[in-house]
Amino acid sequence: MKQRIAYRLQSLIDSFLDPTSPLKAGIEHVLLSSGKLLRPQILLLLTQEHPLALDVACALEMLHVSSLIHDDLPCMDDDAFRRGKPTLHILYDEAHAVLSGDLLMTWPYRILSEITGLRDKQKSSLTAILSTRFAEVIEGQKYDLSLKSITINDLRKINRLKTAALFMAAFECAAIINEEPLCDYSIQGERFGLAYQAYDDLLDEGPSLQLLGEELLLQEIASLSQAVFHRFPLLTSINPFKKELAYS
Amino acid sequence: MKQRIAYRLQSLIDSFLDPTSPLKAGIEHVLLSSGKLLRPQILLLLTQEHPLALDVACALEMLHVSSLIHDDLPCMDDDAFRRGKPTLHILYDEAHAVLSGDLLMTWPYRILSEITGLRDKQKSSLTAILSTRFAEVIEGQKYDLSLKSITINDLRKINRLKTAALFMAAFECAAIINEEPLCDYSIQGERFGLAYQAYDDLLDEGPSLQLLGEELLLQEIASLSQAVFHRFPLLTSINPFKKELAYS
Repeated sequence: MKQRIAYRLQSLIDSFLDPTSPLKAGIEHVLLSSGKLLRPQILLLLTQEHPLALDVACALEMLHVSSLIHDDLPCMDDDAFRRGKPTLHILYDEAHAVLSGDLLMTWPYRILSEITGLRDKQKSSLTAILSTRFAEVIEGQKYDLSLKSITINDLRKINRLKTAALFMAAFECAAIINEEPLCDYSIQGERFGLAYQAYDDLLDEGPSLQLLGEELLLQEIASLSQAVFHRFPLLTSINPFKKELAYS
Repeated sequence: MKQRIAYRLQSLIDSFLDPTSPLKAGIEHVLLSSGKLLRPQILLLLTQEHPLALDVACALEMLHVSSLIHDDLPCMDDDAFRRGKPTLHILYDEAHAVLSGDLLMTWPYRILSEITGLRDKQKSSLTAILSTRFAEVIEGQKYDLSLKSITINDLRKINRLKTAALFMAAFECAAIINEEPLCDYSIQGERFGLAYQAYDDLLDEGPSLQLLGEELLLQEIASLSQAVFHRFPLLTSINPFKKELAYS
């Protein structure tokens, strides 16, 4: 499934950028590097690999990667490496990174508008979901940067905006493609996203671990993720919460 | 008409951002500062102020302003002032400017998806136009930054991508709202955009003036703009090419 997503990402890049474009190699570097492709995989699993879901999944991954590129900039988190590889502003320069991120937050809407087979009403709903959730990611990053010290409430807000928003988008897009009501998908998407961030903080000794402690954090991951897997058993095939399952 | 656009921009900002959002004041600063609002005005004139055109016009202006914010960054054109006011990264910081630009390139798609009264097919066409044309602006900026010296062919390519693309979008969105074929609107939009950039270079002694000389540049502005005004006489009310008309 990951390979299917990567192939389609490559063909979308090829269709949008001239082979001589100075932005092409860098975008391939970040978009096709060793990412987990978790959000697009969730979307494909939840729609049982519906043929119309693949392009939506690619649009979602582009948005995610665009936020990583901008977050890594020297003026933000100033990260020289991502997934073990140099970040775009290191490999090229800051302008190159800003513009590559800009392209990856613009293409998704073109992709949605061009999917043949989707009804226009569905395209419009998907556009609303991606743009609304992605705005939350941007606001979450600003909120995160503006804090001097962090409380558990700040942290919950940041995790909901920065991390959970695009997982919610993955679940909500699946609801649109499956032609099912949005609400239950949104709730499970939020749970999955919060569990994912908690798990990430557990492994990387992030702020949730420091504020809650290991036991509480493990309980939180277990309760959130079990609720999601109970509702959507299909997702257990990409269960990213291994350590939690061993514990519970 | 400018006031109508500014009011609607303000109400859109208010609907998208919490009053306590740290990004709100800066976005108001750039979006409601003394801009000419040329692209949204063109869209309104070409649709005879169709009630459904106002939000599309605001979406277009947001995209334009987002590109200005990112272009002004220290890593790009490094401009401390725009329209006589300090740029966003001077007033706040670079991260603030990057994220504000990101929001303004995301909201437009949400705006399009939420316009009641537009058919979903129209929303989808408008989304395709804005995302495709805005990607050209980004690519144009990269191309501009990557050149060491500039020929007349480079300049034409840059002006077509960086400047004409969003004017083309204004004309093309009008075609969608008017339910008329796109092609003629695209051609006139390109002409208007190229004339506008040529006129700007004439006033600011920009690269077109240096490469073509004043006489040739004035002829180009006259021939391009007269073709547009002949096809769309409604636009003469915002004719930005005063000097050229006095000449011809």
